[in-house]
This record gives sequence, C-alpha cells and structure tokens, in this order.
Amino acid sequence: MRYSRLFSKTIKEAPADEVSINAKLLMRGGFVDKLMAGSYSLLPLGRKVEQKIEEIIRQEMNKTGAQEVLMPLLHPKEIWNETGRWETAKDVMYQFKKNDKEYTLSFTHEEIMLDLVRKHAFSYKDYPVKIYHFSTKFRNELRAKSGLLRGREFLMKDLYSVHTTEQELNDYYWDVAKAYLEVFKKVDLEVRVVEAAGGVFTDTHTHEFQAFCETGEDIIYYCENCDFAENKEIAKVKEGEDCPKCKEGTIKVARSIEVGNIFRFGTAYSQKMNITYTDVKGEKQYPYLGSYGIGVTRLIGTIVELFHDDRGIIWPENVAPYKVHLIQIQSSKFKVQNYNSKVKSFAEDIYNKLIEAGVEVLYDDREDVSVGQKFADADLIGIPYRLVVSDKTGDKIEVKKRDSDKMELLSFEQLLKKIKS
Amino acid sequence: MRYSRLFSKTIKEAPADEVSINAKLLMRGGFVDKLMAGSYSLLPLGRKVEQKIEEIIRQEMNKTGAQEVLMPLLHPKEIWNETGRWETAKDVMYQFKKNDKEYTLSFTHEEIMLDLVRKHAFSYKDYPVKIYHFSTKFRNELRAKSGLLRGREFLMKDLYSVHTTEQELNDYYWDVAKAYLEVFKKVDLEVRVVEAAGGVFTDTHTHEFQAFCETGEDIIYYCENCDFAENKEIAKVKEGEDCPKCKEGTIKVARSIEVGNIFRFGTAYSQKMNITYTDVKGEKQYPYLGSYGIGVTRLIGTIVELFHDDRGIIWPENVAPYKVHLIQIQSSKFKVQNYNSKVKSFAEDIYNKLIEAGVEVLYDDREDVSVGQKFADADLIGIPYRLVVSDKTGDKIEVKKRDSDKMELLSFEQLLKKIKS
Repeated sequence: MRYSRLFSKTIKEAPADEVSINAKLLMRGGFVDKLMAGSYSLLPLGRKVEQKIEEIIRQEMNKTGAQEVLMPLLHPKEIWNETGRWETAKDVMYQFKKNDKEYTLSFTHEEIMLDLVRKHAFSYKDYPVKIYHFSTKFRNELRAKSGLLRGREFLMKDLYSVHTTEQELNDYYWDVAKAYLEVFKKVDLEVRVVEAAGGVFTDTHTHEFQAFCETGEDIIYYCENCDFAENKEIAKVKEGEDCPKCKEGTIKVARSIEVGNIFRFGTAYSQKMNITYTDVKGEKQYPYLGSYGIGVTRLIGTIVELFHDDRGIIWPENVAPYKVHLIQIQSSKFKVQNYNSKVKSFAEDIYNKLIEAGVEVLYDDREDVSVGQKFADADLIGIPYRLVVSDKTGDKIEVKKRDSDKMELLSFEQLLKKIKS
Repeated sequence: MRYSRLFSKTIKEAPADEVSINAKLLMRGGFVDKLMAGSYSLLPLGRKVEQKIEEIIRQEMNKTGAQEVLMPLLHPKEIWNETGRWETAKDVMYQFKKNDKEYTLSFTHEEIMLDLVRKHAFSYKDYPVKIYHFSTKFRNELRAKSGLLRGREFLMKDLYSVHTTEQELNDYYWDVAKAYLEVFKKVDLEVRVVEAAGGVFTDTHTHEFQAFCETGEDIIYYCENCDFAENKEIAKVKEGEDCPKCKEGTIKVARSIEVGNIFRFGTAYSQKMNITYTDVKGEKQYPYLGSYGIGVTRLIGTIVELFHDDRGIIWPENVAPYKVHLIQIQSSKFKVQNYNSKVKSFAEDIYNKLIEAGVEVLYDDREDVSVGQKFADADLIGIPYRLVVSDKTGDKIEVKKRDSDKMELLSFEQLLKKIKS
C-alpha cells in the first residue's frame, strides 16, 4: 500500500475529549475514527489489525471443534423475556419500540443461540453444540472514556457450547481457556486466568482473562508462585499474604484489563427457556450451557495500552497492519533540480519486490513531506520493521525494528531473510 | 466436516409462514434459521457460503483501488439531519431515543462515510477516496416475505467514492460497474445493467444490476440486441417495440432481482453536509460522491432462487459451502453383524486424503440413516460433487455432479484430477 493513497493519514492531535492512551494513539495513527462517545469506525489500518486478530481467534476456535455462524443483532423482546433478562439487564441494553413491537440490540447472544439449539438439536446425538460468531455488541455504558476498552458499540467473538453433562461442559470450558491463552500468547499479551463474579450473566463464579496493564480498570490479586488469581470484587486475600492455594508464594496486586471471559451457566438458562434434548433412554433432559467471549476491538485497545512509547504504537508482529514500513528519502527535497530519481526508482523497485515476495508493506512514497515527518509517522503507526532508502544507503536498505535503535544496512536478500525468520 | 458433527442438519419442512423458495430451501438445507420475519441467522453452512461471496467481492473491490473499513451501525440523529434524511428516510429507518439522545440503526452509510471524509481528506491530494465495508443494514420493511431477498436485517457490501471532478466520478462509476459484473459472473448470475430511479437515495437516475429470475420482484425492459435496459418504474418503451438505442433489436420484458446498484450523487450530499476540499489553487470545492452496493445475503437468496430443482439447491462451484459431499453407504445397515467396516475405513481414508489434498469436503459419516435419506440430503444441500463409497464401489469412488445424472467410477487420483480441473 502506498501511503500517499492510504485513506487515513496520521493526525497531529487526538480530539481534546479523548483521554485514553489507546484511543489517542489509534486516532493519531489513523487506525480509528470516533463517531460518538464509545463508537469508532475502523479505518483501513485499524480494519487490517482487526482482521488479523479475528483470524488468529478463528483458527483457535476451529481447533476446539467450534463452528462459525452469524446471529442477528436486532432481537425481539419475547426471547429476552424467556430468561427474564429483558428486565434484569435492562440498564445495559438499547431497548426500543417500533411499529408496536419491542426490540433490543444485541448486548450478548445466549438467548438467541439457545433458540437455535431449541430448533436444531433434539437428541443427545446432536450434542455437544459449539458455535461462535464475530459480531457487533451494543452496551449502554454510562461512561465511555476508555477508547476501545469500553465501547457502546464494539466487536466481539462470542462462543457458546451446550452439553449433555456437567463434566463435558467443564472439560470444554477448560479447552476453551487453553485456546484463549493461545490467542493471547499469539498477540504477545501476558494474561492471567482470574476467578471473578458473573455480573448480569450468572450468579456463579466465572473466569476472566486479565492482561497486566497499569492503566487497566480491574484490580487482581494473584500468587507470584502458582496460578491462583482472583478479581478484587470477590477476593478474600490481601497483598503480601501467603497464597491460600500453593501456600508457598506471596499474593501480589496488579491493575489489569479483562480481555476475555468464560462462563458456566449449567442448566439455568435451558430450564428458563425450557430447552431439552432426548437422552439415550428417551427421556427429556436440560442441557448445560457455557459462554465464552473475547472483545476483539477491546483487544486492539489493550495491545496499544501495553505496547507503545512516547513516539507511538509498537505492534506485535502477528497483528501489525503491515510487516514493513518502507520510506523513501530525498535529501534535498526542496530543490527540484536535485531530485534523486535513482533513489526513487530503487525504492519503487524494493516495494515491488517485497510485494512479489509476499511481504505486507506500507510504502511512504510521499514527495512533499520532510524526512522528520516520515520518521515520526513511522514511529506513530508502529509497524515492526522500518526500511529506509536514501542516497546514502546505495544499493542496500537501512533496517530498524520499531522497538530497537539498532540500524543495519542489508541487501534485499539479507532483508528478506531477516523479516521472514 | 463430518455431517454427524455439523450443527444444523436438514429439516423436513420449512415453517408454514415461509413462502419464498430461497428461504424454504435454505432453511430445509440447514443454511439459515429465522429469528423473526426478515431476520435470519447464518448457520455454519450458510456462513460458509456468505464468506465465499464476501471474499469474491473483496477481491474485486480491492482491484478498483478501494480500501476496506468498518463503520458503526448505531448512528446519532445529528449526522442524518445534515442531509435531511432523518426526515425523508424516516419510514425505512429504525429510529429510537435512549437517555434523551436520538439514534438510528444503519440503513445505509453515506452520511457516516462523508463524516469520515470531512475529518480525513482536506486537499485535492487526498482524493479520490474509495472506501467500502461489509456490514449490517437495518430496514423497516413493511413486507418481509421474500426470505433473504428482502430482509429487515441483512448484510451488505457498500462502497463509497469521493472525487474532485465529475469526470473522475463517472470513470470510477463505470469501473465499479465492471467490477460488479465480474462478481456476478463469478457466482454464475446472468445480470443486466439497468437504468432506474434512485428511490430515497437520489433524484437522478441510477443503475441497477438485475439478475433474470421469474420469481423476482422487479420488471425490466431490455433490448435483445444491445445493452439497453430500463426498470419498469422509469421505462418509456413497451414490449415488442424497436430498441430506441440500437434501432435493431426488439424490446423484451422480464422479471428480475436487483442484486446490486450504483449511484452518482454529484455534489448534492457534500453541499448539504458542507464538506469541502482545497483545490490546486487553494480554493474550497465540493467533492463528488458515488455509492455502490451489493446485498450479500440477498445474493445468497438470488442464487438459490435461480439454481435449484425440486430436490434442492444446486450451488455454483465458487460459492458452494464444500466442493464435495462424500457419502458412506452400508448396504445392510440394520444388520449390525454385517456392518462393513472395510467400506467405513475406505470412506474415512478418502475423507482424510481429500482434506490433505486441500479439497473442502462434507462427509456424511452417519451410521443410523438410510441410503435414501443420505442421497436426499445431498441433493437438498446441493454441493457440486457427490461421492459415494459402498461395498459395490470397490477401491473406486462413484462420482456424480449435482446438476447431472451421469455417474462415474473413478480412482482417487482420477477424482482429484476431475474436481481440480
């Protein structure tokens, strides 16, 4: 992609009302645009990051045997009445009336998913059911000041599973936990599985995936020695105490961001919605429901909160919008007669060869922008490898990683070897 | 995918209130489920078809130089007031009030896109802008009896372009028309570019992409000799008349389904929203807007309306959920002692080898279902190649195309060659 043709360029200042680091950097870098509080457009760079995250999640979900679907966003009141959540979750929902019919926008999909199960799974042979989708969620958040961390409209991957036994639900629950940890590892997040309260979702305890982050809204107590971890909401331990689980480690406290959560509802929802299957003896039974979510856009925000410096974003390689950021520099840009067409054509050549080699490249081909601006933009956008071609680099390319100050002069072949390793 | 594990199996009868062929077959085949009138879930098979169509469209959009984004679905009243469409398009929109603020759900995205342009394109150097997304649209349709052809909630690919000159808009408009024809060719639709009225979108004439279909809602008048074609709404010609364009052909009339449309708004919207750019002389100018849509879920419905017989769907190869449908047959299924484990293991072997060879395969591995049911399900689901392994096929595989009665006995190598050609 030629930067001159990219729709959304960097901007000097994020809007004054934008206080979170993630929104500031994502807006300044041209990744997102704010439509209103808590609602953002993904611009071309942001959509690329989002699609990479989506594909990482999709692969891991498929490995657990889950199947991808797409459920609607506009829901009739009747289905939400079956579980009572039309009333109990009223505050968080966008409910409205149109043509004498009451609707709500999707804030989650348990009810809709169970309605599918009711219509498509009848016998124990049809179980377990494991379906997921990537879809939009709407939540009427009172505060929406955290950028992509807490949106009124946002993207989520939600997975639901339904089982004939509690044991099978438990087994799959921990399979999904493992799959989630794999996802977070692939996007370079250090995540703890933390016991927590279930909110409007369930009365029983659940598990959250908390990424350590000083700007996070959550506070967790965890053992430095074993996997013990609890959200502050339910924690009975204190900082500095001995771990109640391993008895060896000490409890520490940290701020964090919830990037995923998993719930076991047991048969509570299937009973409320009167959803049954026929077991091997021909008897009706209530199935066990699990629900598992990763906030896709929130994950983008979390990554930016964690991976940035005072110059801009530092994308993990797996989710960077492009792998390399190629910059063409004219040392005497204001003297047209000195315009170095050799540098330009060498840069064009490298650009084309990178594309041919299957490398995703953002090419800053602008001719009316200073060297300083190009470097500042590259740092702000945060693509892993910066490549510079100028009249000083000859037939080589200057290579610098975003997270390092070390520069190397490499031939095209050496460059390919480096970035493909 | 093992059919025994697929979430959504075939069902005997579509709901009685479902009158359209597309919804009946898609529901019976397990592709979609109806949440409420005009709103469907895409089940695993349906989501696969949709993703294939999406990727075909994405490729063609990218070839025109357009960039993918994702715009929000919940919009503030203020932006829609700028063009006056909060009032003029009131009937089609889901408008509502929440916390003293008025919102609408996306029925299209011109206003939101132009708001992005306002914030990100300032100079003639930032033009043209060409951005698209795949997103959900909500339209408060009075009648929603046509299955996926007319939804209250549906998926659309919408592309918007903004230009500094009318000529450039015109050129790109016809580039997009070509790209659309390429998309429709890839999904085997016979489509005419038809002149039409602009509805709530624009007062000037637009072009629709109409697929010939006897069950379609639209009526078009077209020349059998040249590319002249008009929607009945604006047509001044009659059936049997000489074509006013080529003077040689005769005007014919046909029913059709609108699968895409393209609009030229000129500067009407940029003037209303006061969106300007700075031209080469430093003067403010209003840019020219074009808007281009393909209904993704409607396209699924159209394909089914056109490609089916009395036994089920006949998917074009490029959009079929799987390329082959492998069936394992036990000739004496009720006699457990005669269970032919050789047939079973040969079928399993073929299944694994197909996956290894990169062939998308749906494998009907069920052991408690009759031969007749398996064949009926294969015909209903409509995957292009049906493969049968039984105790009569020996070390070969019986191959039949969905749209043919001819059967062939092929070795695995011959089979691969056939389906990969």
